[in-house]
Amino acid sequence: MSLATLLGTEWPLVQAPMAGVQGSALAIAACRAGALGSLPAAMLSPQALRDELAAIRAATERPFNLNFFCHRLPATDAAAEARWRAALAPYHREYGIDPQAIPAGPGRRPFDEETAAIVETVRPRVVSFHFGLPPPALLQRVKALGALVMSSATTVAEARWLAAQGADIVIAQGLEAGGHRGHFLAEDLSGQCGLFALLPQVVRALDRPVLAAGGIADARGVAAAMALGAAGVQVGTAFLCAAEATTGPLHRRALLAADAPPTALTNLFTGRPARGLVNRLMRELGPLSALPPAFPLATAALAPLRAAAEAAGRTDFSPLWCGDNRSGCREAPAAEIVHELARGFPARG
Amino acid sequence: MSLATLLGTEWPLVQAPMAGVQGSALAIAACRAGALGSLPAAMLSPQALRDELAAIRAATERPFNLNFFCHRLPATDAAAEARWRAALAPYHREYGIDPQAIPAGPGRRPFDEETAAIVETVRPRVVSFHFGLPPPALLQRVKALGALVMSSATTVAEARWLAAQGADIVIAQGLEAGGHRGHFLAEDLSGQCGLFALLPQVVRALDRPVLAAGGIADARGVAAAMALGAAGVQVGTAFLCAAEATTGPLHRRALLAADAPPTALTNLFTGRPARGLVNRLMRELGPLSALPPAFPLATAALAPLRAAAEAAGRTDFSPLWCGDNRSGCREAPAAEIVHELARGFPARG
Repeated sequence: MSLATLLGTEWPLVQAPMAGVQGSALAIAACRAGALGSLPAAMLSPQALRDELAAIRAATERPFNLNFFCHRLPATDAAAEARWRAALAPYHREYGIDPQAIPAGPGRRPFDEETAAIVETVRPRVVSFHFGLPPPALLQRVKALGALVMSSATTVAEARWLAAQGADIVIAQGLEAGGHRGHFLAEDLSGQCGLFALLPQVVRALDRPVLAAGGIADARGVAAAMALGAAGVQVGTAFLCAAEATTGPLHRRALLAADAPPTALTNLFTGRPARGLVNRLMRELGPLSALPPAFPLATAALAPLRAAAEAAGRTDFSPLWCGDNRSGCREAPAAEIVHELARGFPARG
Repeated sequence: MSLATLLGTEWPLVQAPMAGVQGSALAIAACRAGALGSLPAAMLSPQALRDELAAIRAATERPFNLNFFCHRLPATDAAAEARWRAALAPYHREYGIDPQAIPAGPGRRPFDEETAAIVETVRPRVVSFHFGLPPPALLQRVKALGALVMSSATTVAEARWLAAQGADIVIAQGLEAGGHRGHFLAEDLSGQCGLFALLPQVVRALDRPVLAAGGIADARGVAAAMALGAAGVQVGTAFLCAAEATTGPLHRRALLAADAPPTALTNLFTGRPARGLVNRLMRELGPLSALPPAFPLATAALAPLRAAAEAAGRTDFSPLWCGDNRSGCREAPAAEIVHELARGFPARG
């Protein structure tokens, strides 16, 4: 069975879930255009998740992908939080922010009993996870619904682990990909590699469909991924400036700038490495730093800085998530972006 | 004109020059099989270079590529050399090596007046450089011969620079590639990215042929690179175990092992970052370290350690150059490897 048939879509094309820069509107538009739209749940409260799911169900009956992070929330660590706030203190002073007034707290929710119960009410065709898979009992609840389970691998070893644990589709996440790296078996980033090397090795190692992700920006990229043995592709960055995305105006401007800075992997914004355009915070603290507390606790102390800087028209403290190939970014309806990408699939029939 | 026509080969396929693991034999075999064979000159004395060139000319009249490094030799730095020898002292003691008896000196030669004069006697179809291009007067001597000039770019900015300086063909070197990174405009490795993102952006930025390099191991990889807009491909790792390569038996065994370690970028072996399989030295000193002296001065103090360890059957101190996709490595005549790769080019005619 082709992956598109399995997914119930026109093409084996997944609009990558991108927490913080999209909601149901982009997912709906991608689904209607023939792709698998994705709703990222990591930054949604249970009620917001229910509302977004209701919006999708009211708009389309097409299959969609519901995405969760499945990290474990770390214990609060007062010393780590104090270290992080001390590192940010000069910036807080610069913007007149009272650090005492900033609440600590996680910036991302993991998949849990409460969200599993919500999933059971909507029965999405696909449920995807980032950072591995949830604990077996929770995963079993998802699989019992008949949902296809997807997760990202950054190495062949992670791909094998996901397949052994029951993932139906594995996403080979090349080092080019924007946003959070999905690694979960090893913290060492040096074992991760570009899609050209990762994808064919994951395809060879597994007996199930592999989605290619990272650096795919247009029909040529889709064709190349399919030539390397992918069953389909997952594309994020090309949708960041879509009309239906909620990407803010400063982030959009940065993505579309002719002289945009390069990207780098940084753990400053959440505590885990993620790829984004280099900005002031990354330059001044170093993009990969021992200063932030454990994921996802880094976000809280940055939130008022980000808000104050953005109000002044600056992206100095904003996560500007972006893959290494932003040439597909354009301000257009998501349907146009889907159709452009879909030209890269081999002709059917 | 197609790139194969320009190169005078059957396919737009370049056997990557790999100093230290190949000489004229692999270049000749690749040329005879219809690819552009390459002779790496970086580790050859002028006389050895003359001998290798004579061997090629005696064996084939087909076009070939003569490759040089074009670094500037650093001033000797006694403090840096002492620091490096202190870091290696425990290993020297372990192997009973007298550090006083180790001569210092460069491990790689740059292109210079003497080698330029040798090039003028052989007039190769292609001359390629690594680490940018030589000074304008030397480059002009090469171009005056009618040779096609190639060099590697690790970023779009480097690709534009090479084209502006007169490179006829630019190699987009994805982060997956084995051996030395070719960067020359910026030392910061974080701006470099995988081939999937780099290649289409370099193709779009230039008005001349772009070769794809990094992670291409088989016909599927060739087809994918061509789909992304490459005019041809350069492949190294897949030739490392070819019958005609001079890769040592321990290096070959490591490349073909089912449980090979991952690769990493390391500057320990020469002073510049290069990709190879992780081994003891990389694990114990950290693959990217402030300890080694400037390129190419790191090699000297390691040479007797490497020799002693290899004599004992160990690769603890050997550079095990390897790209991120070693699935194409096999012990076969180079012609077989060329023909397998060539199946990935679009059918002609």
